[in-house]
Amino acid sequence: MNNTNEPNLQSWIEVQKDSDFPIQNIPFGVIRKKNGKIRCATRIGNYTIDLFELANHGYFNDLGIEDAAFFKKRYLNNFIALGKSSNRLVRARISELFEKGNPAIRESIVEKSAILNHITDVQMMMPVRVGDYTDFYSSLEHATNIGKMFRDPEKALLPNWRHIPVGYHGRSSSIVVSGTDVHRPKGQTKKDDSATPDFGPSKLVDFELEMAFITGKSTQLGDSIPVGEAEDYIFGLVLFNDLSARDIQKWEYVPLGPFLSKNFGSVVSPWIVTLDALEPFRVSGPDQNPQVLPYLRLTGKRNFDINLDVLIEPEGKKATKVCSSNFKYMYWNMCQQLAHQTVNGCNINVGDMYGSGTISGPMPDSFGSMLELTWNGTKPIKLSDGTERKFIEDNDTVIMQGWAEKDGVRIGFGECVTKILPVK
Amino acid sequence: MNNTNEPNLQSWIEVQKDSDFPIQNIPFGVIRKKNGKIRCATRIGNYTIDLFELANHGYFNDLGIEDAAFFKKRYLNNFIALGKSSNRLVRARISELFEKGNPAIRESIVEKSAILNHITDVQMMMPVRVGDYTDFYSSLEHATNIGKMFRDPEKALLPNWRHIPVGYHGRSSSIVVSGTDVHRPKGQTKKDDSATPDFGPSKLVDFELEMAFITGKSTQLGDSIPVGEAEDYIFGLVLFNDLSARDIQKWEYVPLGPFLSKNFGSVVSPWIVTLDALEPFRVSGPDQNPQVLPYLRLTGKRNFDINLDVLIEPEGKKATKVCSSNFKYMYWNMCQQLAHQTVNGCNINVGDMYGSGTISGPMPDSFGSMLELTWNGTKPIKLSDGTERKFIEDNDTVIMQGWAEKDGVRIGFGECVTKILPVK
Repeated sequence: MNNTNEPNLQSWIEVQKDSDFPIQNIPFGVIRKKNGKIRCATRIGNYTIDLFELANHGYFNDLGIEDAAFFKKRYLNNFIALGKSSNRLVRARISELFEKGNPAIRESIVEKSAILNHITDVQMMMPVRVGDYTDFYSSLEHATNIGKMFRDPEKALLPNWRHIPVGYHGRSSSIVVSGTDVHRPKGQTKKDDSATPDFGPSKLVDFELEMAFITGKSTQLGDSIPVGEAEDYIFGLVLFNDLSARDIQKWEYVPLGPFLSKNFGSVVSPWIVTLDALEPFRVSGPDQNPQVLPYLRLTGKRNFDINLDVLIEPEGKKATKVCSSNFKYMYWNMCQQLAHQTVNGCNINVGDMYGSGTISGPMPDSFGSMLELTWNGTKPIKLSDGTERKFIEDNDTVIMQGWAEKDGVRIGFGECVTKILPVK
Repeated sequence: MNNTNEPNLQSWIEVQKDSDFPIQNIPFGVIRKKNGKIRCATRIGNYTIDLFELANHGYFNDLGIEDAAFFKKRYLNNFIALGKSSNRLVRARISELFEKGNPAIRESIVEKSAILNHITDVQMMMPVRVGDYTDFYSSLEHATNIGKMFRDPEKALLPNWRHIPVGYHGRSSSIVVSGTDVHRPKGQTKKDDSATPDFGPSKLVDFELEMAFITGKSTQLGDSIPVGEAEDYIFGLVLFNDLSARDIQKWEYVPLGPFLSKNFGSVVSPWIVTLDALEPFRVSGPDQNPQVLPYLRLTGKRNFDINLDVLIEPEGKKATKVCSSNFKYMYWNMCQQLAHQTVNGCNINVGDMYGSGTISGPMPDSFGSMLELTWNGTKPIKLSDGTERKFIEDNDTVIMQGWAEKDGVRIGFGECVTKILPVK
């Protein structure tokens, strides 16, 4: 097996210098082709690679994948459920087949035409069927900002925050793939000086810059995942826009947490980047003080240095970057989140999604939501078209981008894009 | 089509006087037969009726059900998704076939042997694949009791409670069918006089007496269900035991709601009783004051008079009834819950589950949790074996029962049973 991370590896498919998808990435997604066929796929440069056709042409015959039919399924769940060793064999084989020196597919016009599609000729689909979705709240800077704005600035963090990777259950049904537009939600809100609520469109629609990991292995009810084994259960990551309606949230969330303020639409990037592809970008996380409980303790580099940008694009105008953050800022890492999720015996399934929570960094331009960037609307952001934003306006498109870069190799997530449509 | 609710209707299958499953009920569930086969089924008296075999023998041929194969599926979702009109045709046909005067199956030893199984010869399975699960908090008495215990007794209800059918997302993966035992969870708890948390088995495991409805029709993201049409989207109901770890909940739930305190196991009764079967038991709900917002307003009898009992059975001892409540006490009804869930455009799927929240009545013996019944452990309950309970102890079995009764007809849910095993 070759080393899929080797920086010198190059593909015979053209990969532009700033592409998120060099041959070292090999993410997984689901495409719909022009002929309507649904296929599990990967991507190099601007071309998608149809995994069913690769299997069909015999390229996975020796990999112990008995049934190629699940590469025709609507979701990646069955492929992911094969397990990391199978998933790795497939990635390594793709790496071999598309490496510059390999003529097998390169020299076959018939095979190339069956296997490759230009990215503009396919529609990206939701990559997994999400069984359950948890949203964590794991950025120290984000939790501190929220505490400063809405609680006591001197005691911004709640007492449990440094002990528990705080999380809550979210809605799976309303997680949609990048490119899906979302209507501004209606709901109940209450003015501070009013005794009773009003009903109408949310006035404070916001993005939350998150990443989400997807589990690749199931557990039984009653089982717990030791923190040191958690990475075995993580298949890969996507960008995640946890759209939020701040005014609805404020009125509804005590005492049982956010509900309608969050479940009108959450948007994910379409390509799941594997933990293996992100291996070169490991970094240490922030010191955790006080020391965490034993079930959350682990050593090693468990954070990932992934640059994250958010842009706002008003209808028909140029986009303006409003935030530059990084996944490395997370206080609680994914292993801790998964160990915590299961410490009580809660079972997980392949395809479950786990949002990081808003990823805010230490600098004011690294805050991961408009709420923080504009400090609850008190410091509007100027866009390049001269207009200002406190929150997201109708027909604004929110664009999230994520990429890691090292030794001349850039592993990216592409974009997570959604337009906020007027209330329906 | 005959009237499936007709009180004089009788089956040629023996139905004992106190049975929950007369021919007027015809609930839906999933069974595993002794030969390992999985079948969608209904039940009359102590016999399950295999719907695939009914279809196989041609009894659904004229009902427009094109593919009988979904009666062999692991879950009822595909059958439910056919829609209410198809579901009703199947119920009516079953009612005809098993009515006393109908010899068709009654006189065929071969067909009876293929179609009927004694309830002790099958294993009940989880009836639906739950896509998303919401838990509401819709009993005025429960919310008031909690407020009195943990907040200001003078201001027990939070300001939003009479305006919003408060709800939050729960975990789907850990919803299991009656008969599944659940381990006491481990987790973080914090003593009032300690600055830092401890880790260990929960000391305060509790039941919550709930009912849950299951949706039978999907919506698209962005759509809302008008409150007056909500019943079209409700397939039926089950008993629901929302197991809770009070000490874990107390430490984790601010600000984002209950998480690990709730997702270690929730238990449902195996037979989904349709809204149609419950038609004779409609009653008006409590007056809602102040008047609710227009999107939550509707007239008519939207509550259901369903008796609910909870028993605790220590290992090897007799069970003691600890609670007698009723579903009619709900302040917010199911139509309001579903209208609220979707008012922001949140989409729903067939098979989603919506818990009522703990159903407490006005009398101290009608409170739907040990937390309330023992007033946070200050008034222990005496069991018939002489022992006392503040909360649930290891190897206690919690039994929930539900039934409606009128004009000599009893429509029941059977039991929702789970034993709490020691920590794993």
